[in-house]
Amino acid sequence: MKIDFKTAMHRLMAAEDVLILTHANPDGDTLGGAFALALALRQRGARANVLCADGVPERYAFLAVPPETEFAEQYVISVDVADRSLLGKAVEESYGDRVDLAIDHHGTNRLFAKESYVEPDSASACEIVYLLLLAMNVHITKDIADRLYAGVSTDTGCFCYSNVTARTFRIAADLLDRGADVSGINVRMFETKKPGFLQLEQQVLQGMELYENGRISLLTITRAMLDETGCRDEEIDSIVALSRQIEGVRIGITFKEKPDGTWKVSVRTHEDVDASQLCALFGGGGHKRAAGCQFDGDKTEAAKRFLAAARTFLN
Amino acid sequence: MKIDFKTAMHRLMAAEDVLILTHANPDGDTLGGAFALALALRQRGARANVLCADGVPERYAFLAVPPETEFAEQYVISVDVADRSLLGKAVEESYGDRVDLAIDHHGTNRLFAKESYVEPDSASACEIVYLLLLAMNVHITKDIADRLYAGVSTDTGCFCYSNVTARTFRIAADLLDRGADVSGINVRMFETKKPGFLQLEQQVLQGMELYENGRISLLTITRAMLDETGCRDEEIDSIVALSRQIEGVRIGITFKEKPDGTWKVSVRTHEDVDASQLCALFGGGGHKRAAGCQFDGDKTEAAKRFLAAARTFLN
Repeated sequence: MKIDFKTAMHRLMAAEDVLILTHANPDGDTLGGAFALALALRQRGARANVLCADGVPERYAFLAVPPETEFAEQYVISVDVADRSLLGKAVEESYGDRVDLAIDHHGTNRLFAKESYVEPDSASACEIVYLLLLAMNVHITKDIADRLYAGVSTDTGCFCYSNVTARTFRIAADLLDRGADVSGINVRMFETKKPGFLQLEQQVLQGMELYENGRISLLTITRAMLDETGCRDEEIDSIVALSRQIEGVRIGITFKEKPDGTWKVSVRTHEDVDASQLCALFGGGGHKRAAGCQFDGDKTEAAKRFLAAARTFLN
Repeated sequence: MKIDFKTAMHRLMAAEDVLILTHANPDGDTLGGAFALALALRQRGARANVLCADGVPERYAFLAVPPETEFAEQYVISVDVADRSLLGKAVEESYGDRVDLAIDHHGTNRLFAKESYVEPDSASACEIVYLLLLAMNVHITKDIADRLYAGVSTDTGCFCYSNVTARTFRIAADLLDRGADVSGINVRMFETKKPGFLQLEQQVLQGMELYENGRISLLTITRAMLDETGCRDEEIDSIVALSRQIEGVRIGITFKEKPDGTWKVSVRTHEDVDASQLCALFGGGGHKRAAGCQFDGDKTEAAKRFLAAARTFLN
């Protein structure tokens, strides 16, 4: 069931012994929002821990906070999770039908939680968490501000994507005023490239395929490429972003091989193409300009099917 | 002579028949600020044109506004120009000693104008122009907002560099509210890479030299590389930025060959190294994290001298 902002705020204020879930393959927004919320709830005297099916990747380790002694959770919240399947297998099995409150910014949210507060126009889940914490009169400490800023900045490609609104800029300004280490987080998230990453980027670009007079790009990242260059799955965001940055491209598609041999497809589009509708054809979802889906089995066959669908979205 | 904000504002309010000068090799900040100021002065009933020694490059053509019928300038303003030599030879010869007001954000400004308003902590000259226009009660139209946003965003690497302040974010929010095409300008400035640019980036990275255990990087861009890939001088900003983004690098140096065979050196540093002090040793200047200077003659010799100086700035 969908609920409004005020109800969501009241649920958070009443919550005790809280478990906060992120999506699998976590990014800065789901982790930043979850840990910021945990710190805020603890500040209010509740107990709160964060659970991520894949743990916290090294790239985002600075967002984690030490867990509290184990307790039996009374209330379960998900942050930035559009569907129970995105919690990851192990977490979905335990908690897929036990989420009390979903806080999310995906228009494709499947309303799997008992109650859902969804703002599809919010550039990040962290923007929503920020507004909820302000309404709850939480004192937004430097530690909370750092985590919210990490989500606000990473989900907008450092304020570069078309999801940015005036509200996004104003929230960033306030988080900076409250002590967020904007400069340090930017260096870490956007301004540090490992030599191996540059190698991976070159390999991926050399294998780039262009279709429909250069209006569709297809990038492929295999496990072998990741292994050879020593790159991790959570480091490829800017390569996925690159798929859309090639001049003339309207639909940028990235096929990334997962450790189990299946394929994660990430789609980035410009304003004339709805990426979430395209991915929904294959059981996926996301945002208008950034969405994803999964494929099992042979990549050539999957790419053929996906490209055929993508072509129908041009014009 | 240095003047304060209020005096600068009064000068602008009294100005008539104005010529606005940008620096040579113009970027988004000098052009955005100059054309925004021209539109604002015209709105107040003054005549105002913009002059750039190198004309307006194609990349920034969307910032230009048609010139007014020729008139004899009574008042000359420079925007984002730290020294008269940076006006470019032809403009310097005509106007080098005739600049009435310099509006600038370079701490290294040589105070070459009759009066100078300099805010070294401002991330861009456009932030200062924005504040002056607000104080003058100029109506910040969409056309003015677009130009100011272009300067604010490009001089901060889309809000990614350490020069960003809470004020920067708040100004961006206000410009968006006033109709600036934030999304379109971001796509144009940051999210569009020509295939030739990607080739150039690969060539430059393949020739990257690392010194002092990887703490200094040296990139070289020759005319031959620019010609072969069809790239223009004004398109290399993100390659210069890359010099600092390699993991472990504290000082990123880019040598770019100019059409006349001399070398433009651009330096990007992290917070422990003052780039403007380093470049000042060779007659250049700029900001703490981004500065530049020029070298005539042999590149190998110039690089040797510059690297020797750079080494003394580590630790």
